[in-house]
Amino acid sequence: MIQAALASGHAERRCVFEAFARRLPEGRRYGVVAGTGRALEALRDFRFGEEELAFLADREVVDRSTLDWLADFRFSGDIWGYAEGEVYFPGSPLLVVESGFAEGVVLETLFLSVLNHDSAVASAASRMTAVAHGRPCIEMGSRRTHEASAVAAARAAYLAGFSSTSNLEAGRRHGIPTMGTAAHSYTLLHDDERQAFANQLASLGLSTTLLVDTYDVTGAVELAVELAGSELGGVRLDSGDLVSQAFEVRSQLDRLGAPDTRIVVTSDLDEHAIAALQAAPVDAYGVGTKVVTGSGHPAAGMVYKLVSRESGAGRMEGVAKASKDKASVGGRKYALRRRSTGGEATEEIIGINERPQDDGDDRPLLVPLVERGEVVARTDVEAAREHHERARAELPQRALRLSLGDPALATTYLDDWT
Amino acid sequence: MIQAALASGHAERRCVFEAFARRLPEGRRYGVVAGTGRALEALRDFRFGEEELAFLADREVVDRSTLDWLADFRFSGDIWGYAEGEVYFPGSPLLVVESGFAEGVVLETLFLSVLNHDSAVASAASRMTAVAHGRPCIEMGSRRTHEASAVAAARAAYLAGFSSTSNLEAGRRHGIPTMGTAAHSYTLLHDDERQAFANQLASLGLSTTLLVDTYDVTGAVELAVELAGSELGGVRLDSGDLVSQAFEVRSQLDRLGAPDTRIVVTSDLDEHAIAALQAAPVDAYGVGTKVVTGSGHPAAGMVYKLVSRESGAGRMEGVAKASKDKASVGGRKYALRRRSTGGEATEEIIGINERPQDDGDDRPLLVPLVERGEVVARTDVEAAREHHERARAELPQRALRLSLGDPALATTYLDDWT
Repeated sequence: MIQAALASGHAERRCVFEAFARRLPEGRRYGVVAGTGRALEALRDFRFGEEELAFLADREVVDRSTLDWLADFRFSGDIWGYAEGEVYFPGSPLLVVESGFAEGVVLETLFLSVLNHDSAVASAASRMTAVAHGRPCIEMGSRRTHEASAVAAARAAYLAGFSSTSNLEAGRRHGIPTMGTAAHSYTLLHDDERQAFANQLASLGLSTTLLVDTYDVTGAVELAVELAGSELGGVRLDSGDLVSQAFEVRSQLDRLGAPDTRIVVTSDLDEHAIAALQAAPVDAYGVGTKVVTGSGHPAAGMVYKLVSRESGAGRMEGVAKASKDKASVGGRKYALRRRSTGGEATEEIIGINERPQDDGDDRPLLVPLVERGEVVARTDVEAAREHHERARAELPQRALRLSLGDPALATTYLDDWT
Repeated sequence: MIQAALASGHAERRCVFEAFARRLPEGRRYGVVAGTGRALEALRDFRFGEEELAFLADREVVDRSTLDWLADFRFSGDIWGYAEGEVYFPGSPLLVVESGFAEGVVLETLFLSVLNHDSAVASAASRMTAVAHGRPCIEMGSRRTHEASAVAAARAAYLAGFSSTSNLEAGRRHGIPTMGTAAHSYTLLHDDERQAFANQLASLGLSTTLLVDTYDVTGAVELAVELAGSELGGVRLDSGDLVSQAFEVRSQLDRLGAPDTRIVVTSDLDEHAIAALQAAPVDAYGVGTKVVTGSGHPAAGMVYKLVSRESGAGRMEGVAKASKDKASVGGRKYALRRRSTGGEATEEIIGINERPQDDGDDRPLLVPLVERGEVVARTDVEAAREHHERARAELPQRALRLSLGDPALATTYLDDWT
């Protein structure tokens, strides 16, 4: 595409590309924008290096002028978008990229990869933290996803309210609180469970969490308190019926004089399992596969479409394809979260080629991310985490229901596109 | 775990860890091992660098002796495993890692991340290429998964029979054939479709593939042949009812004198959509989201368990946890694919602590991957692709059915574990 556009002189036509989701995953009531910060950092470093260019030249993927263009590539356009952590609905313009055609199109895969992955994780994670109502959720899914995705997934989960991660690289790179856990292999390494627990307590202190379901839960809890006393930090349950076991173990711990010892549960948890466990005396949830794979929806379904471009006559014109089941809405979008006087979100208003009118209680959703090629927005996860908490708190209560439903806010287009 | 084991003197106890899947994803009839080559390459480079160690020290994640151990880490053990590309069943010992405890346990997340991701993609991809019966499948899902997973996913799909990828980095890094496509944005960039097609043909030659569903398919196909003539390489359909459109477009192309122009279809394809399109005159399938996210099963569900370790008395002993719904089978595993005299696979035989007897037509499944820390197996994707083709061809026909079913081969344990 870039080669043909360079050759014909269309490569620098001014264009507006937008990233958005046509719909939410089936039955979801809101989505969470995540990855914006990572995408902007990647944009800052986005260069075609010698090895990449040599490959493209050797394989004759593109011609010489395209190679030259790629070698010199620096993004020089402007980008607006939803703040990272914002909630979104069908059609919400999550990124609005204005640049020459070639500059905008070369970023498509990068932006979509980052947003589709991170938003899928954050959207699932937000449902989990919403239903956990303040009980800590710990991200422990690194081993269930690609080794690099794992780091991004930990970031996305934290953004959506998770308290910590077992991924140490995510701690190092993004400053996310980390925690660890002992596996069954650690207990099995020892000649018996007593030795395993005693060694763990000796090395990590009484505040550690002991895994108590390797052999027999009741025996292990008794042993744990015998060895650690009432100062024992926690016990972890990783199998069986977690609801009934949590009640039994809580009552056993209280009886043994360890009322402050916490119960951590793990084992294929998702938002529904967490909801079921809310009635049980559980202190923290360790979530693995389901959070890092988006709880059934591993890609957020975002697309990146050309919505407006300079015509041969030099005027900006809205454009849209007419494909049967995938028609898109042409024209540049502006977005506003309509809110009641009480501050509750009521509607997603999207203006086409014009800014929707703020009724006084509303919140404009597009913020500047990149100006003339320079990143101007915060890219750190803490900013996104705070933003998500505020944005989710504005949603009506029905948005937080787990059952399949419609998007919590309707999307209304103010159609000025003529 | 490593810190406690170092402190108590258990860190060097000889251990055998095994990676396996307790079950296949619901209804799947076989799985495909992928990622082994990537995991071995990652093992070769697996070091704790200064930045990582400084982070662990600053945050007091581990103590000084553990930091020293990590700084010196080099894997010195032995690993056997299923050849990359092999098919697998519940319980198949995909990796058998023999080393000291700390060396084996520190690799758990790396190995599982790579295998769980790559095998999920390859297992889905293999179903697609099986049902496509030789029609090329093109991997085009980069934008639907994390930017680094995308490269690994292209490799895993190719291993399982895909013909090419749109991910150029996968071409550069793994030597996979690459191809590109024009998007709707390319057509919309131009003042009209005629200009877009003419410019693409001028730059990329008549063998290019034109996207014909931006406005009206019939008009676009007519225009395409008007501009390119009978030499036109292909047209792409990306929306609507692909089966009926493929018939219409094929007949239109033939009528216009372009019988050799190929029809490529894309648009949320998965193995079921491909099966439905097999009856239509389609020449190639472009597959995106569904292949890179494992077609409903984004993680292969593999676990990594301690199955045998040196006891205090110095003898190797099988170990297994007794957790209610996750009990594992202790003892070191050996595996054999039982085959009929005709060469058809009939059973997965797993010997515990002993090698199953080869009946003459059988195939041992564990091959040496690492010897005393040195990688001894091929890690390239071509070897894995060839192996997969041969291994899948041995399976009974029922293995290739798309409908939900049991694993195509039963797993039989020869239980000598006493």
